[in-house]
Amino acid sequence: MHAIHQYQEFFITYLESQTINKKPENLYAPIDYILRLGGKRMRPVLTLMTAEVFNTDYKEALPAAMAVEVFHNFSLVHDDIMDDAPLRRGSQTVHEKWNINTGILSGDAMLILAYQYFEQYEPTVFRDLAKLFSKTALEVCEGQQWDVDFETRKDVTIPEYLKMIEYKTAVLVAAAMKMGAIIAKTSEENANLIYDFGLHLGLAFQLQDDYLDAFGDPETFGKQVGGDIIENKKTYLYLKAVEFSNANQAQQLNDLFENHSNDNTTKIEEVKTIFNQSGAAIATQDAIKEYTFKAFETLEKMNIEPDKKAMLRTFGENLMGREV
Amino acid sequence: MHAIHQYQEFFITYLESQTINKKPENLYAPIDYILRLGGKRMRPVLTLMTAEVFNTDYKEALPAAMAVEVFHNFSLVHDDIMDDAPLRRGSQTVHEKWNINTGILSGDAMLILAYQYFEQYEPTVFRDLAKLFSKTALEVCEGQQWDVDFETRKDVTIPEYLKMIEYKTAVLVAAAMKMGAIIAKTSEENANLIYDFGLHLGLAFQLQDDYLDAFGDPETFGKQVGGDIIENKKTYLYLKAVEFSNANQAQQLNDLFENHSNDNTTKIEEVKTIFNQSGAAIATQDAIKEYTFKAFETLEKMNIEPDKKAMLRTFGENLMGREV
Repeated sequence: MHAIHQYQEFFITYLESQTINKKPENLYAPIDYILRLGGKRMRPVLTLMTAEVFNTDYKEALPAAMAVEVFHNFSLVHDDIMDDAPLRRGSQTVHEKWNINTGILSGDAMLILAYQYFEQYEPTVFRDLAKLFSKTALEVCEGQQWDVDFETRKDVTIPEYLKMIEYKTAVLVAAAMKMGAIIAKTSEENANLIYDFGLHLGLAFQLQDDYLDAFGDPETFGKQVGGDIIENKKTYLYLKAVEFSNANQAQQLNDLFENHSNDNTTKIEEVKTIFNQSGAAIATQDAIKEYTFKAFETLEKMNIEPDKKAMLRTFGENLMGREV
Repeated sequence: MHAIHQYQEFFITYLESQTINKKPENLYAPIDYILRLGGKRMRPVLTLMTAEVFNTDYKEALPAAMAVEVFHNFSLVHDDIMDDAPLRRGSQTVHEKWNINTGILSGDAMLILAYQYFEQYEPTVFRDLAKLFSKTALEVCEGQQWDVDFETRKDVTIPEYLKMIEYKTAVLVAAAMKMGAIIAKTSEENANLIYDFGLHLGLAFQLQDDYLDAFGDPETFGKQVGGDIIENKKTYLYLKAVEFSNANQAQQLNDLFENHSNDNTTKIEEVKTIFNQSGAAIATQDAIKEYTFKAFETLEKMNIEPDKKAMLRTFGENLMGREV
């Protein structure tokens, strides 16, 4: 096994060895651009790490890790168009730097390129990887659609919200890990358990992202703190606050979220006060702990060496202990 | 073997048996809509027909035929956004009926759904189909990008134009047929020959489309006759007219194509006169015949029964003899 930062380095070295910028330039240059913008490379690192957890050299998992990262970036390119987002990782989004049509078409090509990385595996592994990938990719689309639908709905429930973030975020984390397991040809039971581990960790990760969006340290969070509040996003924090509020507080929250005020500083402070006073902030932290705990429970059932379990646990603790 | 219209019926029956409209509704309803809008279903018919040419029941080829049709419709949905097209087959385009974001996301889901149809085959067939599909899909994206690039270029050559229509249109016709061959497990030589047959037929088909766009019968063409001329599209007809024109005619053609006139009727007539007088119209008809002939030549090399060859030849002749 290696340390997380080593897997990151292995992956980046592999990524840089790939010739992405072919002709026509206007199709491939945006792909090259977004893939080299950086990011934590969490998903491909998980694929490499999981292969080694099941006693297979990470090198065998590099093409699948690449497929996961290309797919993740495809979804960012298309989502950024849909969200009309100008920035991604502090740089211009693809549709801003080029145009919307380029974003659509280069994104399409990325989705296909992701599948092509599986071609480096033998037929049965190829099929298992591509099947898991298709299922996951379709769920990510469904999650994105639920997210869009929720913007104009006032009756979103907590279970619906959890299903949305499961599809939009967690299934790809889960699939990234299961791909490592498939390549390592471990038992189906282990492969399913590592999927569940990734799924629960992914849910915890997204809930933490919701939490940090409101309560994170502006110095280290990377995104604008309060961004979700400004955009009136019905996150877990919001939904829990509504659930726990009396009629008066609920009305106040509703008014704040109806309002597209210019004075965002005040709005953010007022909403955060309600998140705290209603108990929504603590409930969110509890949910994060609950999903992290569920992930670790799954780990216990797995048939692998204790040091491998410890490694995965440390990864989960680091991920959840992030203060960014 | 069956008649073309029978393969069409078989395919439509299969399509109608598929449950496409799942939840979330806003993701799947547009997919259901575009797939049921109709069309000639030429590509899936070719997949079914080719399976039977190589002595395999068309039923085995139905999922692959469906993948081809879903992919073709995916490309229509995204291309219609890029072209800002209001109508498709006489009905509203997806992004008109819903919105651009829906068109992007539903299109993405269709590309993934297309891959999923290959999962019904055993691993080696699955891999062969998915590999061919990915290669083809990426070429279609490249062709679309060349097409976009050509709009703002004044120096497009005939070979470049032919490469563009090969990628944008012909490779999918070729791949649709090769998929039938892969499913039938015929020899690699036969599979490659049927690919070449489809490729040349696809090129002839697209050149004929260019020709009919200017010279087709308005009663039966289905699209607006002169549409390419109104949009100043540099088709084979245009490029040949420039090649064959003297400086005077070339200047006149250039002026007509710079001009976004309201009087399209006059513009269409003047451009068509140049297409005729320059010899571009005849040169285009010659090119159509040449590619059709090349397709039929490929057929001769194929190791199949004479009645199968006759069938494929009749299909090609009918396709090229269309007066729509």
